[in-house]
Amino acid sequence: MKQEVPYKIYLDEKEIPTKWYNMRADMKNKPAPLLNPGTGQPLTLEDLNPIFCEELNKQELDNDTQFFDIPEEIQKFYRMYRPAPLVRAYFLEKALGTPAKIYYKFEGNNTSGSHKLNSAIAQAYYAKKEGLKGVTTETGAGQWGTALSMACSYFDLDCKVYMVKCSYEQKPFRREVMRTYGADVTPSPSLTTNVGRKILSEHPDTTGSLGCAISEAVEVAVTNPGYRYVLGSVLNQVLLHQSIIGMETKAALDKYGIKADMIIGCAGGGSNLGGLIAPFMGEKLRGEADYQIIAVEPASCPSFTRGKYAYDFCDTGMICPLAKMYTLGSQFIPSANHAGGLRFHGMSPVLSQLYADGMFEARSVEQTAVFEAATQFARVEGILPAPESSHAIRVAIDEALKCKETGEEKTIVFGLTGTGYFDLYAYEQYNSKTMNDVIPSDEIIKSYLDKLPKVPGQE
Amino acid sequence: MKQEVPYKIYLDEKEIPTKWYNMRADMKNKPAPLLNPGTGQPLTLEDLNPIFCEELNKQELDNDTQFFDIPEEIQKFYRMYRPAPLVRAYFLEKALGTPAKIYYKFEGNNTSGSHKLNSAIAQAYYAKKEGLKGVTTETGAGQWGTALSMACSYFDLDCKVYMVKCSYEQKPFRREVMRTYGADVTPSPSLTTNVGRKILSEHPDTTGSLGCAISEAVEVAVTNPGYRYVLGSVLNQVLLHQSIIGMETKAALDKYGIKADMIIGCAGGGSNLGGLIAPFMGEKLRGEADYQIIAVEPASCPSFTRGKYAYDFCDTGMICPLAKMYTLGSQFIPSANHAGGLRFHGMSPVLSQLYADGMFEARSVEQTAVFEAATQFARVEGILPAPESSHAIRVAIDEALKCKETGEEKTIVFGLTGTGYFDLYAYEQYNSKTMNDVIPSDEIIKSYLDKLPKVPGQE
Repeated sequence: MKQEVPYKIYLDEKEIPTKWYNMRADMKNKPAPLLNPGTGQPLTLEDLNPIFCEELNKQELDNDTQFFDIPEEIQKFYRMYRPAPLVRAYFLEKALGTPAKIYYKFEGNNTSGSHKLNSAIAQAYYAKKEGLKGVTTETGAGQWGTALSMACSYFDLDCKVYMVKCSYEQKPFRREVMRTYGADVTPSPSLTTNVGRKILSEHPDTTGSLGCAISEAVEVAVTNPGYRYVLGSVLNQVLLHQSIIGMETKAALDKYGIKADMIIGCAGGGSNLGGLIAPFMGEKLRGEADYQIIAVEPASCPSFTRGKYAYDFCDTGMICPLAKMYTLGSQFIPSANHAGGLRFHGMSPVLSQLYADGMFEARSVEQTAVFEAATQFARVEGILPAPESSHAIRVAIDEALKCKETGEEKTIVFGLTGTGYFDLYAYEQYNSKTMNDVIPSDEIIKSYLDKLPKVPGQE
Repeated sequence: MKQEVPYKIYLDEKEIPTKWYNMRADMKNKPAPLLNPGTGQPLTLEDLNPIFCEELNKQELDNDTQFFDIPEEIQKFYRMYRPAPLVRAYFLEKALGTPAKIYYKFEGNNTSGSHKLNSAIAQAYYAKKEGLKGVTTETGAGQWGTALSMACSYFDLDCKVYMVKCSYEQKPFRREVMRTYGADVTPSPSLTTNVGRKILSEHPDTTGSLGCAISEAVEVAVTNPGYRYVLGSVLNQVLLHQSIIGMETKAALDKYGIKADMIIGCAGGGSNLGGLIAPFMGEKLRGEADYQIIAVEPASCPSFTRGKYAYDFCDTGMICPLAKMYTLGSQFIPSANHAGGLRFHGMSPVLSQLYADGMFEARSVEQTAVFEAATQFARVEGILPAPESSHAIRVAIDEALKCKETGEEKTIVFGLTGTGYFDLYAYEQYNSKTMNDVIPSDEIIKSYLDKLPKVPGQE
């Protein structure tokens, strides 16, 4: 029972970071600007303000400010579910028989079940401050929609959620949590928008995609006075808010004098990875410390490992700005039997630039291997992990087993972004051995990449 | 932002209690002994050992030992999800505009989603120590079954769960969590047991009951070598293990010099209530302090408030021992439209004796009022509560509103036993306004109480 480091490190509430950290300030190569799809010119505040909240747009375009003060009202809300524990995975280490020291930052101890609430409350706060009536958004696995519903309920804002159809059908209970928090939830594509009707007429059997749901939510925001669109990932502002994950993680490690060797995070649009690695990447960018950083993505949606670093639309409907990012093409939709999250065709522009600069590595993993790791983790650590988070668990276990072979006592930190309580349909597939791996062929990926938009200066 | 008391009080791991407290040791009037239904004589260890684990039977019959050391292996497992936070409900207080200070002990931060894991791990530990192959049990809402699955997985024990049929159908995802942890789950009543076949032939459309599921699980345990039956509530041993809830709550209050005025807990079989109030009741029994203690039960299953204090069977099949308790009759089954847990017809014998002695009060609440409180709580405190726990929330809110009228600054502590992530079917009913209240008539209750078994000395 004697442990120098407790099973769970909780910071005192006074130790919760009061600033968000902006990686862009320390990047020599700044992320490429968003472009207006009509003019091909970098987007200005004036371009962004009709779509997003003004204060958030300032954060979006600010590549220079290193730290942003977290408004007091948001700090207060953070007290509702933060600090999140940094857990020493003693049980998992023992089960693996590894000399590695494994830690995970657990962001699932709130009803949204994930880290998404960190940015949802910030975005709702600025929307309220601007005097808006409500916000619109999309949700895939449902975590972001739930988080935004909770945040909007807190600030008494209207919340319209477009939910990727296959998730809507697989996760009726997610929908009901959002309703309990007062949100409207519509399966996407839907007949409520022009872009939805267009997609449905062309692909009546589509199971939906995040890109398509984004198009619908944006259309509703720009055509309804008093509404703006908010997004749970990809954007620079989201990575800024999510830096609270990494800041807390680092504070907890520092409190016990622990130096991480390796940081592992799952990557869909980048909200978790960008938040988790932020302060570590900051040290790396400033030359103060070195870390091995690994992004883990699904083999069925491999933006980093098989995509192209190029300007592309963020949405299927091609009405959103162009972002320079690792992308599989805005028309790419992962196989319907891909079970859990991380379905976005693109990637955060900040992370894309860092990856292009060789600041971290990326790996893709197959979903049966992911659920194998998830089940192993659940049985020894007592938390049923979200499929998304389980991508990181897979690689953390792989790395810990390598340490077992080499005898290295590496300190591995990974992000456990959330719980899998609303993903039991996927677990059922895995338990029943009906889950399989579908990996897109080179031809399919090439066919989408061939359709990337023409942008001046881009081959 | 200035608070003397943080939003969440987490004990240090070193401060987690290392002993369970046995209220019976301080009771002048001991709970009545369990009786052998055949002979009418008090049960001995020899009677109990074929059904339950030996070490647990010693705990069951021990009315004298005040504290039991928690075995080190169980303490270690507790570190996986404990300490549980004691939360100051600042957000709820503000929403209510009450001068009352509200605290809740939150036991839902583990995958079973409730406090049930506290006893599950203890029972699995003793089963393993005895060299058993496996255990059988029943589950209603599913928390206990999930908790036991997790505990058995940790100790590599076989786990057979009989799940009340209406819960099995309403909560397919609960079943899948149990499967993920390696348990066998059978809807009850089933054709796999004699008692199940008998009940099904008499009541083919029954939605099941805890009492019936208990009968099936016991039958399987006593007819399969190497198996014993374990139970998640009612028994003295369960209250003993669950005292960790109250011990931690009291330690957290003491750490900040807080004296509770009122302790509120929901009551089904008594596992949560008996655990939460244990050390407070201890002080009350020893004359060291006074507390107002309130048990809250559903109006559709009102054992304390409308039942009779008498010897009765613990199960529908009438094969279990007789317990003296507040009961609605072993054949009582709450209305099928009763949504959440707390469905047991009887009550812990320890709590029954304390209630008969006037040591606490009891209230029954209707389910629409319970879900109203649940929704209000979820929206401001960020946790979607279990329907069971929401019974306590209802009364905590009622009491806080009384304080608003009187201006009293009472300190109210209630038990938030778990989360409602697997109860969205019930929330959907509430959100859709299709939920109603069904309260058993006096005639119905009398009809069941008239059938109580004849026991020598009992009128």
